[in-house]
Parts: sequence; C-alpha cells; structure tokens
Amino acid sequence: MSDAGAAPPRRSHGRAADELRPVAFEPGFVRSATGSALISVGETRVICTASVEDGVPRWMAGRGTGWLTAEYGMLPASTGQRKPRDVAKGRPDGRTVEIQRLIGRSLRGVVDFAGLGERTVTVDCDVLQADGGTRCAAITGGYVALRLALERLVREGALAQLPLTGSVAAVSAGIVGGVPLLDLDYPEDSTAEVDANVVMTGSGGLVEVQATAERTPLSRAHLDELLALAERGIAQLAAAQVTAVAEALGIEAGETR
Amino acid sequence: MSDAGAAPPRRSHGRAADELRPVAFEPGFVRSATGSALISVGETRVICTASVEDGVPRWMAGRGTGWLTAEYGMLPASTGQRKPRDVAKGRPDGRTVEIQRLIGRSLRGVVDFAGLGERTVTVDCDVLQADGGTRCAAITGGYVALRLALERLVREGALAQLPLTGSVAAVSAGIVGGVPLLDLDYPEDSTAEVDANVVMTGSGGLVEVQATAERTPLSRAHLDELLALAERGIAQLAAAQVTAVAEALGIEAGETR
Amino acid sequence: MSDAGAAPPRRSHGRAADELRPVAFEPGFVRSATGSALISVGETRVICTASVEDGVPRWMAGRGTGWLTAEYGMLPASTGQRKPRDVAKGRPDGRTVEIQRLIGRSLRGVVDFAGLGERTVTVDCDVLQADGGTRCAAITGGYVALRLALERLVREGALAQLPLTGSVAAVSAGIVGGVPLLDLDYPEDSTAEVDANVVMTGSGGLVEVQATAERTPLSRAHLDELLALAERGIAQLAAAQVTAVAEALGIEAGETR
Amino acid sequence: MSDAGAAPPRRSHGRAADELRPVAFEPGFVRSATGSALISVGETRVICTASVEDGVPRWMAGRGTGWLTAEYGMLPASTGQRKPRDVAKGRPDGRTVEIQRLIGRSLRGVVDFAGLGERTVTVDCDVLQADGGTRCAAITGGYVALRLALERLVREGALAQLPLTGSVAAVSAGIVGGVPLLDLDYPEDSTAEVDANVVMTGSGGLVEVQATAERTPLSRAHLDELLALAERGIAQLAAAQVTAVAEALGIEAGETR
Amino acid sequence: MSDAGAAPPRRSHGRAADELRPVAFEPGFVRSATGSALISVGETRVICTASVEDGVPRWMAGRGTGWLTAEYGMLPASTGQRKPRDVAKGRPDGRTVEIQRLIGRSLRGVVDFAGLGERTVTVDCDVLQADGGTRCAAITGGYVALRLALERLVREGALAQLPLTGSVAAVSAGIVGGVPLLDLDYPEDSTAEVDANVVMTGSGGLVEVQATAERTPLSRAHLDELLALAERGIAQLAAAQVTAVAEALGIEAGETR
Amino acid sequence: MSDAGAAPPRRSHGRAADELRPVAFEPGFVRSATGSALISVGETRVICTASVEDGVPRWMAGRGTGWLTAEYGMLPASTGQRKPRDVAKGRPDGRTVEIQRLIGRSLRGVVDFAGLGERTVTVDCDVLQADGGTRCAAITGGYVALRLALERLVREGALAQLPLTGSVAAVSAGIVGGVPLLDLDYPEDSTAEVDANVVMTGSGGLVEVQATAERTPLSRAHLDELLALAERGIAQLAAAQVTAVAEALGIEAGETR
Repeated sequence: MSDAGAAPPRRSHGRAADELRPVAFEPGFVRSATGSALISVGETRVICTASVEDGVPRWMAGRGTGWLTAEYGMLPASTGQRKPRDVAKGRPDGRTVEIQRLIGRSLRGVVDFAGLGERTVTVDCDVLQADGGTRCAAITGGYVALRLALERLVREGALAQLPLTGSVAAVSAGIVGGVPLLDLDYPEDSTAEVDANVVMTGSGGLVEVQATAERTPLSRAHLDELLALAERGIAQLAAAQVTAVAEALGIEAGETR
Repeated sequence: MSDAGAAPPRRSHGRAADELRPVAFEPGFVRSATGSALISVGETRVICTASVEDGVPRWMAGRGTGWLTAEYGMLPASTGQRKPRDVAKGRPDGRTVEIQRLIGRSLRGVVDFAGLGERTVTVDCDVLQADGGTRCAAITGGYVALRLALERLVREGALAQLPLTGSVAAVSAGIVGGVPLLDLDYPEDSTAEVDANVVMTGSGGLVEVQATAERTPLSRAHLDELLALAERGIAQLAAAQVTAVAEALGIEAGETR
Repeated sequence: MSDAGAAPPRRSHGRAADELRPVAFEPGFVRSATGSALISVGETRVICTASVEDGVPRWMAGRGTGWLTAEYGMLPASTGQRKPRDVAKGRPDGRTVEIQRLIGRSLRGVVDFAGLGERTVTVDCDVLQADGGTRCAAITGGYVALRLALERLVREGALAQLPLTGSVAAVSAGIVGGVPLLDLDYPEDSTAEVDANVVMTGSGGLVEVQATAERTPLSRAHLDELLALAERGIAQLAAAQVTAVAEALGIEAGETR
Repeated sequence: MSDAGAAPPRRSHGRAADELRPVAFEPGFVRSATGSALISVGETRVICTASVEDGVPRWMAGRGTGWLTAEYGMLPASTGQRKPRDVAKGRPDGRTVEIQRLIGRSLRGVVDFAGLGERTVTVDCDVLQADGGTRCAAITGGYVALRLALERLVREGALAQLPLTGSVAAVSAGIVGGVPLLDLDYPEDSTAEVDANVVMTGSGGLVEVQATAERTPLSRAHLDELLALAERGIAQLAAAQVTAVAEALGIEAGETR
Repeated sequence: MSDAGAAPPRRSHGRAADELRPVAFEPGFVRSATGSALISVGETRVICTASVEDGVPRWMAGRGTGWLTAEYGMLPASTGQRKPRDVAKGRPDGRTVEIQRLIGRSLRGVVDFAGLGERTVTVDCDVLQADGGTRCAAITGGYVALRLALERLVREGALAQLPLTGSVAAVSAGIVGGVPLLDLDYPEDSTAEVDANVVMTGSGGLVEVQATAERTPLSRAHLDELLALAERGIAQLAAAQVTAVAEALGIEAGETR
Repeated sequence: MSDAGAAPPRRSHGRAADELRPVAFEPGFVRSATGSALISVGETRVICTASVEDGVPRWMAGRGTGWLTAEYGMLPASTGQRKPRDVAKGRPDGRTVEIQRLIGRSLRGVVDFAGLGERTVTVDCDVLQADGGTRCAAITGGYVALRLALERLVREGALAQLPLTGSVAAVSAGIVGGVPLLDLDYPEDSTAEVDANVVMTGSGGLVEVQATAERTPLSRAHLDELLALAERGIAQLAAAQVTAVAEALGIEAGETR
C-alpha cells in the first residue's frame, strides 16, 4: 500500500499503517444533555452533546422541516500549550469556523428533516484533549450524541420514529514520508505531505471528502489509496458506533434494541 | 438552627440542612494539562485545569513575581436548556465575568507569587453539568488542579518548593423558606431568600465572603448562621482536597507524599 | 477597635478610623433625567441618574412586574492617569461588569416591582472623580436618583404610590496596616489587607456583603469589626439621603414632604 | 437679515435671531484632570477634560512633535429619552465618530505640535445635557480645558511656553422656517432646513465650516448670512473663553495672567 | 485667482488650477445590481451600486415614506500600501464612517421620499483605486447608480415616476502652496493647507459644504474662491452625469430619454 | 458520462455538461496593486489583487521564509439580493472564513517560500458579481494576480527569480439531476446533489479536493467522474492563465516572456 522501499513508520499504539487508534465511547457522559457521548480516539477526547429545541432559524420557518447546526470548541488546556478561548478575541478563529461547518454538513447528511419537524438540533463538540483528528472524532462522536438525543425523543413520544437515514462517521488519512497512513495523530499530522478527512455513512456512501496537499501536489493514485484507507477505518468506526448506541440504549431502556 | 415550626425541606441526596452533597475528585482528568481535576459536587461537575506559562502581564513584568488568572465557562449543554456560547455574542456575559474574577481572587489568596517567579498560571474551569454551586466547585476543584500543576513544576525541578501558603475551598449557603442550608443545589438556589458564597483557607481563614439578599434583607444573626454552616462545609471540602491530592501524587510518583 | 500598639493612621480630612469622609448630594444635577443626583464622598464624585421606560426585558414580560438595571462607567479623566473608554476595546472591563451587577442587585433590593408595573428603571452611575469607594457612592447616590425619579412618577400620576420598600446605601470598610477603617479613600484602598463593601437598607438590614482578603485571610473577629463599622457609616449615609431627598422635593414641589 | 415678511420666531431665553444662548464656564470642574471645564450653553452642558500623556501614536513617533486626539460621548440620561451607551453595541455610533473627528481637527488647528514635543493630549467631551449644539459646545469648552492643561505644564516647568497659536471656538447657525438663526437649540435644530457648524480662531480665521442642507438646497447668499451670524457668535464665545481662562488662572495661581 | 508671484503648480494630466481631472462613467458596471456605475476621476475609480429593498428601518416605518443609506469601503489594494479591511478590526474606521454619512446625506438631498414609498435604497461605494477625491467621486457616481436603479423601478412599473427632485454631484477644492486648486489628487490633497468638499445639485444649490483648514486658518476670501471653483467643476460633472445616464438608458431601453 | 436516459440539462451559454463557461482575464485591472486581474467566468466576476509587504507574521519570523495569506469578500450588490457587509456584524461570516482559508492554502501550494524571503503576499479576492463558482474563480484569478506581482518584484530586482513552483487553478463540478456537470453556475449549484471544488496545478497535481454530498451520499464512481471533469476544466483554465500572463507581461515589458 506504500511507496516501495520506504521503511514503515513507528506509530503510536504500535499500530500498522492501516490501523485506527483505540476508539472508545462513553455515552451519556453529560447527564444534562438530551444526548451525549465522550469519544476517545487514542489521546484525542471530545465531549459531544446534542440539544434539541423547538423551532428553526427564521429563514426556514413555516416549512415543517427541522435543522441541525454544530459548534466546535477546544478547552484551553486541550493542547500542549494553553490555547486562549475564542471569546478572548471576540470571534471564533478561522479553523474553528471551518471545522464546525464541516461537522454540521456531515451530520445533516443523515438527518431526515421532514421527520424531525420544526426542531433545531445543536451538536456541541468540545475537545478535552487534542492529539490529531479532532474534527473526525467530533463527527463520529457527534453522531452518537445525535442518535441518543433522537432516541430519547422517540421514547418520550415526541417523534413517531427516528428521523435518521443512516449513520455517519469520519476519519483522517494522510501521506507521511511518502507512506499513506490511516488516522493520523498530531505528530503525524503536523509532518504530513497530504492530509485528508473523509466522512462516510454507515452504508459506505461518501458524505464529504477534503484532501489537502500541504507540501507537494497529490496524484490521483495516492488519493485513491487514501480513500481506500479511510473506507476501511470508517467501517470499523461505524461498527463501534453501533455497539456504543446499543449498549447505551440497553442501559437506559432495560433492553437492547 | 432554623425558624421554629418550619418543616425541614427535603433535600437532594437525602441530606440534612448542614450537609454537603457527595463530593468527588478525578485528578489528572485532562492529560494535556499541567494539572487538572474533574470535581463533582452532587450533579454539578466542573473540569478544572491549571496551565503554567513563562512571563507575566506587561503591567507587572520585571518584579520577579508571578500571577494567576482564572477563566470560567459553561459547556452549552451543561444546563437543562442549551446556553449559547459566550463567543456567539462576542463577549463573556456579566455573570461569567463576575465568577471568573471571584475564582482568580480566591486562588491568588494562597499563592506565594515571589516563590512562583515570573510565571503566569491560568486556571480554567469549564462546567460540564450545572446544578448549583458551580463557582464554589470551580474554586475547590481549581485549587486541586493548581496544586497538581505546581507539584509537577517542583518534581521537574523548575521550582525549588511549592509556592503555596495553604489550600483554599469554597461553598455556598443560603436561606430557603426561612431555613439556613449548606451547599444549595439549583432548585434551592433559585428559590433562596439569601445566597452566600464563602471562600476559606484550609486553616480556616476567610478569603472572600459574598452574601446577597435576593428578596428580603438579611439580619446579622442569619449571616452568622450562614458563615457557621460554610465553615463546617469547607472543613470537609479541605479534607477531601487533601485526600485527592495525596492519591494523585501517589499514583503519579509511586509514593504518597 | 484596632490591634494594640498600632499607631492610628493619618487619614484624609483629619478623620478618625470610624468616620466617613464629608458626604454631599446635589439632587437634580442632570435636568434631562427623570431623577438625578451628584454625590460627593470626599474627592469621589459620581453622577447618578434614573431613567424610566415603559416595558421590561422580554424574558419577564407579561407578569405585570417591573425591572431595574444599573450601568456604571468612569469618565476617562476621573482617575489620575487617563483611563481609556470601555468602548475603545468594545466591551466593558471585568471590574465595570462586576460593579454594575452589584449596584443593580443592591437597588433592586428595595424596589416593589409589582408596584412599579411593567416599567424598566435604568440607573446610570458615571464617575466624575475616583478616589476610592466609587461603587458604594454609586449605590448611595443611585438610590437618591431612583427615589426622585419614582417621586416624579407619583407626582405626575403614573404611579399611585412609591414602589419602594425602603432606602439603601453602601459603604466600604477595610483593614489597613492591621487597623479596621471605615470608608477607605484610594490610597487606603490600594494598601488594604482586607476590603469590604457593605450594602444595607435604611432600617439596618443587610442587602449585600462582599469582603475580600487581598493579602492575608481574614478572621471572623475582624469581619465582625468591619460589619460594625459599616453599620455605623450606613446609618449616617441613610440620614444624609433623607435630608437630600426632602430638600429636593421641597425645592421642586414647593413644599417639604 | 431674514426673508421679508417672515415673523421672527420665538426663541428660548427670549433671544433675538442673532443672539447666543447664555454661556458659562466652570473651569477646574474635574479636579482629577490636568485641565477641565464644564461648559453650559443654555441647557446644553458638556464636561470637557484635557489629559496629557508622554509619547505619541506609533505612526508619528520619533519626529519630536506631539499629537492631540478628542473623544466625545453622551451620558445616557443627557437626552430626553435614555440613549444606550456606545459600549452596549461594542462601537461608537456614526454620529459620535463624526463629531469626535471634528473636535480633534478643530483643536489641532491651534496647537503648536513642535512646541508640545512628543506628548499626546486627549480632550474628552462628555455631554451631561443635550439641547442642541453639543459639538460646538464641546469645541468651545474643550479649548478651555486644553488651555488650562497646557498652562499647568508650563507652570510645572514641563513646557517653556504655551504651545498654542491661538484660541478656537465653535457655534452653529441654521435656517429655520426661512429665517437664519444663530446657535440653534434642539427644537430649532430638528426643524432646520439648513444646519451649519462653524469653527473659528479667536482672531477670526475659519478652521472648519460644515453646512448641510437637510431639506432644500442652500443658496450662496444664505450661506453667507450663516457665516456672518457665526462670526458674530464666535467673537462673543472667544471673549467668554478669555474671561474664563483668566479667572481660572487667577484662582489657581494667585494672579491674573 | 492665486497669490501674486506664486508659480502655478504642475498638475497631473497637465491641467490648469481650475480644471477637473478626466471624468468617465461606466454605467451598468455591476450587472447584478439594480443600478450601478463605475466612475473614474483621473486615477480615482469607485464602483457605485444602488440596491432597492422593500421596507424601511423600524424607526420610520408606517409613514409611507422611504429611506436611503450609503456605505463606503476601500478595496485593500486601492491605496499604494495595502489597507487592512475594516472587518479585520471589527468596525469601520472613523474616516469611513464620516464619509458614508456624507454620501448618504448628499444623495438623500435629491430624493423625494414620499414618491419612493416604503422602500430603502442602499448605495454602496467601493473604491477600486484611490488617488484623492474618493468621497466626491462616490457621490457623483452614486447619483448615477441611484438614478439608474430608480429608472428601472419606473420601467418595471413599481414606481409611477422618478422620485428625484434633481441631480447631485461633488468635487473637492483646496489651497496648495497658497494657490486655490480644483479637484485635488492625492499628492495635492496631502499637502493642502485647506481642503474643501462641496456637494451641489444640478441646478446649482448647495447641499453640503465641508471646508477644513489643515494647517493655517482660512479667510472668507479664500473660502469664496474655493466655492467658486467648486461651482464651476460641479457644473461640468452634472453635465457628464446627464450624458452618462442618457447613454445608459438608450442602450438599455432602445431610446434616449 | 451521465446516467442512462437522463435528458441533458440546458445549460447557460449553451454549453455541454463537460464545458466551462466563457473565461476571461483583465490583468492589471487595479493599477494601485502590485499585481491584479479581473477574472470573469460567465457572469461570475472577481477582482483579484496581490500586495507584497516586507516582513512575516510574528510566529514565523527569523526563518528567512515568506508567507501568503488570502482574503475574500463579496461586494454587497454582487448577489441578486443585497448582502450586508461583514463589517456590519463585526466579523466575517463562516462561509467567507472557509473560502479564504481555501484560497490561501491553494495558492501557498505553488509558492517557494524560501525563494520569496521574509515577505508577506496578501491576495485579495473581491467578488463583483456572483453566479456560482466564486471561490474557484478567486483561486484561478488570484494566481494571475500573484504571478504578476512576483514578476514585478523580479523585474524591479527585489527577487532574483520567480518564487513559484508552478501554476494553480480551480474549478467546480457537481451532480445535478443525476448528471455530472463541469463548472456549475448558481442555479445549478443551488440544486446540485453533490458539489465538488477541485484545485490542481498546471502540471496536473491535486492541491485540494473538497466534495460535499448535499442531499444523498456519493459513490466512488461518481467522485471519479467529477474528478475527471475537473481535470479537463483545469487544463483549459491553466492554458488561459498562461495566455493572460503572457499578454500582460508583453504589454507591460514590451516583450512576451
């Protein structure tokens, strides 16, 4: 899968080029939220919550359909060196804006907004620890929080059925020292020649592809390799989501759905 | 301790008027921070981190002494109804400003700034779940994060000894339905006639007293009752801090200090 | 009243440890305001106005009750060295926020909001000269402005009777060089070990107590001394308020009420 | 001086079309400022202060010359209906910006910046009561504050001589109901067809002319009439400035300069 | 027309002291706008557009009359050295505010707001190249954009007739090296002793006069000279506007109106 | 190239599914900029300028290498309905932030920053008319402006040779009604199921790929089709860039390079 002759890099957690870091979910992590999950991908940890409010933004009111928006933040101590809060300079920084728009688009990709009705779901993703791949972890964990929030609405009778068309998860892949790698951690990400974030549904459809050549342009062949790696990683993440949701619903409802 | 004839209120966790909610610390909760702790006081949970940077604000540079500042935030889903982020309107709200100034003053009260040298400690307190008493939990948990950060600097040789003159903790007390109560949860706090926040050192000195009569003025006798309740609660919090710090240092250093 | 052997400090205006600075009111100082007063406490001078508008903030509309909010500002030249306007950096600074919240809470403590009806009173306190104790002067002068504004509404028939449950005033007390002092001026305040601001009603009830140990923790005995000093000072301020209001109403209405 | 047949309007203070409102100065009104004056022009009252700091803005440093900047604000209760503070929306409103730029240009017109050296003078003009003509009152009163501040620097030996090339004052004139009037009050200003603000030196040179036809274009003949009215008014204001400064210096220095 | 003995300055485009720079209009420059024109005055080029929306600001709703507001901006590369965008510091700078208020007042001077009905016209003036006189070019070009937008509304039947009372144009004049000059370019403007901006209707009425003595006060005689120069220049600009509008309407409608 | 049986859509300019809209460059459009070009892609028109300043942001100073940053804005009238300026709400909107980060990354992909030295190039892209594909037009036109600015530095001797490793251009592709289309205009873009923006070098390497499934997930086969369309379009754009640069340099320098 990599350039001939390139020595395989030593990766954290002793994993191979096509392996994910250890992934874990702690559903229901924030008890005051409608739905929530703490997702860990290696040392990256993101608190994801989903809050549901009646009503939609003014520009789309009256159509009977809902909306989903996402916000992303980093706790100041989540990075090695303290990162000042966005509020200190009065506006989110450019990277934050870009990421929260990506999370929102990705999650909206699996919501049935007619089924949701005129409600707004806000998915908040707050990074507790950042070691690369926070936007992908936010999407993957955000889906679990979203799913649990919507399950609650169904259980409480507010919705007749889940307004979801599927699940969604995300993973990064990149080329580091000429070698395509799945799920970059921070040291890998900061030296990658190419960095891609791929968002896919549980049934294997692409929702978003963002590939950026940081240093040298990317060939189509390399892009195909990255997409293949990502597809493989997302299949595993989707399975982990299924397990996490099942366990959470079993714990909450006394039965596994 | 209360008005004759008033039925004792039913309190969460089945506790008496002069009892704290269950208190727990999870030191080292944020591994990317120099020092950290997750504090739980009943359903109130606050992530506290302490970050140390070289240098001090310009207005105090060149004196050889350090500084400590605190920031406070609430995760949007920490309250029952989603609370918009401060950054959405470009500035922290008034309550946030008031609270983070209180946390900063309280923690500065036990720091030996000459011993710290020209370093700035930033204590970040991010509320994960809010059920009353978040500012007091932030001070109590913030002290643990601060202590662990400074212990690390000592262990790594950056400081010869701990630049602390003692410990500090905080608790609320209030009068609800005429009855003085220790450690108000949110339903109690929102109906209290009087709300007091008391900050004390581990050796029993007052650092800050803030008592506010929300509905009817407060007598000196009632103020004395609230201060006595708070003193009792803080003694227990101080003991819990000692235990948490000892365990954390034992786990990290292989021995209990 | 002080530590044995401590020489009594020389205070401005040649006053004793338990004496206020000279206090004066100039009611009606701002003729375009519904109610106003210029308060002088030694060299500290604050312009206080009360403006009444129909309606209340959205979150409390429809209950038939009113609201009071306070704003505090310092004219740039009010301090020895020019202080930039808050608007220059786009938001009020933390100290301003903390003070205006204190003024608002203090004045709300004596307003009968059902009697006021769905009106909003805004009390603006703008510091002309700052020599310590500006927040206390703002509360004490703000009450006079508020009272005069409400008297005008009664006189004009908009209100049947004064929607006030009493008067309110505030004073500082602190410990300087080990000696408890009433009503600190700026040089005293900037060297105080402990600084307390006490707000009381004219009938002697506590509305707010804020005591901060800046350097060393405070004992209960010292806190009691500060509260006793404050009580004494507030009694004099309350009397001065009564006189000022009476004279103002006599001048305006042709008779003393 | 006016259109034939037009009945002379009834003006406040019973004055003629070419008369100023009563003008008064209270020099030294803000004792914490280097120089200050409260100016009253009828019911318009503006607090003017001049603060002097060492250094100049970065873009002009190193030339050995000074700078002067002006800021303008309205106390919220200065108008009949309470005006929210600029800081509430995070920026000065357009009118404020326009006015403070005019004040700055006008005062800079009489400063000898080489004589001032690398110092920055900030003239703050805060409107206590607004009844028309606040920008002109701010210039006229601002000059007195500036003069007194510079006199103090000379007296204290920081400057060898006054770095002023003359005095400056301003007045409005306008056409109301077809009649040219000097020094419009608010009711006149809000119904004027043409509104002009004229700034002149004490020796009669024009510093700034701003004439705006609000409703119908203005003829050259009418503009000439307005300029003639303004010239007459400014001569009186300049004389009043001389008197105010002389009295202030006599009071402060024990002799009239 | 100038001081005896002063050598006539060499001016760009080889023009005389009383000559305009070459003026050209490109009507319809922005096809997505209701009305638009690119105006060139020498090297100064400004993109002017007029957008019409239903409704008026809240404070004037319900009167059946319309409103016009103007905004002014400079493209970052329009000046020799790149000028940061206003949004970078979160607010328009003072000069921008002053200019857009002038443009708005000037254009409102020729609009019949009752005829316009409850519509708001926004005239945007964005400077492509700045070589002095941008505010005057914005007014002159803004009128053409406004006229073309209103003509379109008439043509489409939304308005029965043009809600304009005339045309409006602006030009600068100033005194450079003692010589009165018409239409200053940037090098002239930055060394001028006096700078005046004059706005007049096509029929010769004054709409706004702003004259500022930057270095030495201005005599009435000099002001008169500047006004005479401006009157001459505006007559030529008004004629050029007529031609540009006629050609634009001919091109668009197949006939010259 | 499309789903069997789908009727080919009628496209603007009568073009086929795999055809670009007419593309044109007007190099040197902003004469005050170091380098500039107005790019037209159908009805989309973007003003691109490149400004070069000495020095780099603080975080990268002292390495001897340069930096490039991009800013993107839309003139208010560039869209059918007037779009308020970003400065009106004090910050760029999320879409703007996302786009200007994309432009910056894309152009940085072909700059040799060691060759540039400690200089900062700012590429400003201001949309004059928006009819879909503005971000791609900004990249394609921005490259021309950048190239011309750097050519000038070489010509003036500031740089020994062009610090570029190649050219860069961008185009959109999408799936509309099941049919893959190249270079979407606004009506196509707003109904597309999938929208992709592809950035490539003149030698065919991928710099950035962003594909978003707006409605239904995307298959790998469809993604491949979009990439093939984009590759074809970019080859044409790259050729047009070569021609435009050659002509511009010929006009400026008297010879074709």
